[in-house]
This record gives sequence, structure tokens and C-alpha cells, in this order.
Amino acid sequence: MTLKLYYAPGTVALACHIALAEAGADYQAIALDFSKHEQRGEAFLAINPKGRVPALITDRGVLTETPAILAFIAQSYPAARLAPLEDVFAFAELQSFTAYLSSTVHVATAHDRRASRWADQESSFADMRAKVPQNARDCCQLINAEYFDGPWVMGADYTIADPYLFTIVGWLGRYGIELNEFPKIAAHWQAMQARPAVRRALAEQAPA
Amino acid sequence: MTLKLYYAPGTVALACHIALAEAGADYQAIALDFSKHEQRGEAFLAINPKGRVPALITDRGVLTETPAILAFIAQSYPAARLAPLEDVFAFAELQSFTAYLSSTVHVATAHDRRASRWADQESSFADMRAKVPQNARDCCQLINAEYFDGPWVMGADYTIADPYLFTIVGWLGRYGIELNEFPKIAAHWQAMQARPAVRRALAEQAPA
Repeated sequence: MTLKLYYAPGTVALACHIALAEAGADYQAIALDFSKHEQRGEAFLAINPKGRVPALITDRGVLTETPAILAFIAQSYPAARLAPLEDVFAFAELQSFTAYLSSTVHVATAHDRRASRWADQESSFADMRAKVPQNARDCCQLINAEYFDGPWVMGADYTIADPYLFTIVGWLGRYGIELNEFPKIAAHWQAMQARPAVRRALAEQAPA
Repeated sequence: MTLKLYYAPGTVALACHIALAEAGADYQAIALDFSKHEQRGEAFLAINPKGRVPALITDRGVLTETPAILAFIAQSYPAARLAPLEDVFAFAELQSFTAYLSSTVHVATAHDRRASRWADQESSFADMRAKVPQNARDCCQLINAEYFDGPWVMGADYTIADPYLFTIVGWLGRYGIELNEFPKIAAHWQAMQARPAVRRALAEQAPA
């Protein structure tokens, strides 16, 4: 069966989209229009009650949450070698990285546009938004200094960590952060741009 | 080698502590004193530059982030059957659940005591704290309605999702939420209390 990936342009779903392309999976990418709040509409809530993207429809059921979908793609297409599946410790290090992106880095950036998830007052939103650049910078500095082996995130081998990092650091410009502040991450972003799977996913997400 | 788990009482590290006990691992649990800010001290930052718990010291290096450590424990002790390791889709469903606890539920509760991670003004902290009960309730309702198969989180088999859910819902009283609002989760919490591994981890974390 063709896997179906629900996404919206500019969201974290790009990471899974790239990973599906890297894996050589048979997939279809289906856009939701966030400007029409389609992610909160009845049709999509029946697919993903969380009202979020990404959601991946498989022949066994629906999967949500980026780190879980990325690991699923790596395990489902072992020939693509998107994770060190034979090495429990190395796989755990990879999962530590994707979990950090999910629960710390993505959450830090979400306090810009999505501040209303965690507060109700306009003054709080402004305060939270104002702190996003510092928090995003702190995360990137930590990654650049401690968790980026190079040339790919986990070292010599390209993994599911790479499209995930690429996707999130692609948002830094929104917060006035220059990628060049983090030399390894900036070089990684350039290297990602050259990959056919990245070009394919970006082209598939481009407005018609 | 004996695994070393760094934890602080009352934190999410309890999930990994219970999982190590369930796995029959050879481990040592080492408490950090958060009241003395030991998690931000030089000695611990050399172990985990994030300054957070849990951190698991293995013979290959240090692992951080609860979902990654839990999956590592399950994969390292397959005889304990703490995850459906032979079924890629079922493992992904399990990881979807742990990722949701990490990036949504735990983050929602962290806006109570840890609001200063994402804002700077006292008025914002108060606003964020006031919203925690509603967000925590929404998460628990979603889990109770959509993602809890029973009797354990993933269905008939106990997995790493169980100590993680148990740990986080153990905090609900802090926000004035009665566990009985969520019948399946309340029954699960009771069932967890009866497990020897849970009793052992709680006893090991009790003040001397």
C-alpha cells in the first residue's frame, strides 16, 4: 500500500517527507491548509485526534509524532540505512538526538507562533515570543558543540536525524538568527540542499 | 558494567528507574539534589551538558532523553519483553505514545514549575501556571479516549509506556487534578503500584 503523509508546508512534517524520499518509499504527500484550519476539521481529526501534522497512514494504522515516524521509516526500509539498526547503543544515541529536537528545540520555537498553547494573555505571548531567539540559539549552540559529529549529525552515516535537524534549523530566520552563527549546522544545511530527496520533498511541498 | 542512572526524586527519571528494575538490569540509581542545583553543577554538566535528568551512563557512553533511554532499555533486555521489538509498526505505535508524553504532556506540565524556561516576566509565569491544569486534563482525556488500550497502555502486554505514563500522571495532584477523572488511567495507576519493580524504584528514591 502507498503510505500517505499528511503535512502542511513550513511545518516539521518536512522531516518525515524527506525521510520517505530517502527511503525510496512508495508514498503520497497530502497537504493540509492551515490557513483554513483543516488540521482541526472533522475529516482530519478522524485521522489524527491530536489535530497536528505529520500523520502517516499505513496499512496497519495511523502513526503520529515525528521521532516515532522517523524511526518507523528507518526500520521499515533497512536497505536505505537511515539508522544504525544493528547497534542498540548507536540507535539510542540517534533517538536521544531526535527526542531532543522534538521535546526541547521544536518546543522552544513553538513559543513564537503557538504561544497560546501554554498561556492566555497577549502580554504573555509577547514575553514568550521575545525569548524564542535566545532559547533557539542556546539549543543550536549545544548541538553544534556537543551533539553534531559531522559531516552528518551522527557522524559518517546519514540518518533520520539529518532531515529533522535540517527542517528545524530552516526556521531560524523567522527569529532573526543567522545559521552562520553555528558553523557545523550551516555546513550541514548546505549539504542537505544538494540531496535529491531533499529537493524532491521541497518540490512536492511547493505551491502548484 | 553496572548502568548508572542519574535522577532526582519527583522527576521524570522515575520512568527509566522503573524500566531498569523491570528489565532486571544491573543498575545503580544516583540522586542529584535539585535544591542545591546539582544538575547545573560542573560535575554533572560534564556528564550531561543539558543539565537535566535522567542521564544513563553505559559502557559505550551517556544517554539522555526519556523516550530514547526507555527504548534502549527495552532493546538491551529483550527477554524482559518491554517493547514489541519484532513488530516494526507496533514498536512505532509505542514510540508515538512515549514521544507524545515527552513533547506534549511533560511539556504541558513543565509550564508550572519551569515556566521561566520560556518567558521572563512574573505575570507570564502566573498565566502559564494557570493554564497547566486545563492542558494536562486535555492530554489525559485524549490518552484515556484514544491511546489507552488496556489493561496496559499498549494493550495486553506491559511495555516501557507504562512506567512513563505512571510517572507523569503521578504529578497531576500538584495541579489539583483527580486521577479518577480518567477511569482507565486511574485503574492503570493502581495496577502499577502493585508491581514489584515500581515498589523497588520508589523505595530506592525514598529519602534515607
